[in-house]
Amino acid sequence: MTLKSFQDYYDDDVSHCYGCGRLNNHGLQIKSYWENDQAVCIFYPKPYHTAIPGYVYGGLIASLIDCHSTGTAAAAKYRHEGREMGTEPLLRFLTASLHVDYLKPTPIEGPLELRSTITEIKGRKVVVETDLSVAGEVCARGKVIAVQAPEHYLRKKQD
Amino acid sequence: MTLKSFQDYYDDDVSHCYGCGRLNNHGLQIKSYWENDQAVCIFYPKPYHTAIPGYVYGGLIASLIDCHSTGTAAAAKYRHEGREMGTEPLLRFLTASLHVDYLKPTPIEGPLELRSTITEIKGRKVVVETDLSVAGEVCARGKVIAVQAPEHYLRKKQD
Repeated sequence: MTLKSFQDYYDDDVSHCYGCGRLNNHGLQIKSYWENDQAVCIFYPKPYHTAIPGYVYGGLIASLIDCHSTGTAAAAKYRHEGREMGTEPLLRFLTASLHVDYLKPTPIEGPLELRSTITEIKGRKVVVETDLSVAGEVCARGKVIAVQAPEHYLRKKQD
Repeated sequence: MTLKSFQDYYDDDVSHCYGCGRLNNHGLQIKSYWENDQAVCIFYPKPYHTAIPGYVYGGLIASLIDCHSTGTAAAAKYRHEGREMGTEPLLRFLTASLHVDYLKPTPIEGPLELRSTITEIKGRKVVVETDLSVAGEVCARGKVIAVQAPEHYLRKKQD
């Protein structure tokens, strides 16, 4: 693992996402890292992230898969182009579609481990597939089709 | 619209879901109602539910579609069986799969209107399809395959 997460490279102006922005004090502030060819994120749910007692609510799982996947898509694209993370022009990705299969209830004591593989990189599109597991048991599987954000999305407010 | 939402019929012991539990003070506490054959939920995002500035993060959209759909599935099943909401044996639904297509960025000023149609009821399965719109423009489309929860999921803690 590297010391700096994918999300730590996001420009301050686009670091307020509830799921992955390091500057959103209300948010989840997830951190994703390469582990060889897989992107990994570890998340510790809070007790109030519950569904039925003892288990994580599905929206948290969807949120984690979504934000971890768009961060992973950007990291994969940088790597694919042989560029260092965070170099200009900035690469950020938006979710075109999100699919989650909930295989079994996800224990809230966690930690939740998201482990993702890039299954396609083509043009502005990156496909990311994720297993979410607790204590080695896969509880949910996700697939995100991420699309590179147009440049004007990344423009600073003063522009 | 009826005065009591689908979620208001949930038993206290299973009303702590972050997305739809009326007893989760940290949560979203969504409320869903019938409007003829469609189930409707109106949600006002908080400023911190942001993605890039001005727009809602995708995980909130997924969370709303997820919880609104499982509540709608239960309401649809009660209606399908000609039973009053909340009557025993209790009907609650879990998400088997969630699919969201993000069609365009969703303005954070909202309000977000989720409007769902039941496209299948068969055995323990209900399929719910949802348009999420702001000011009449559809920003996301969701499809949830919901499955009726086994009875032991709904058992009270003291059992």
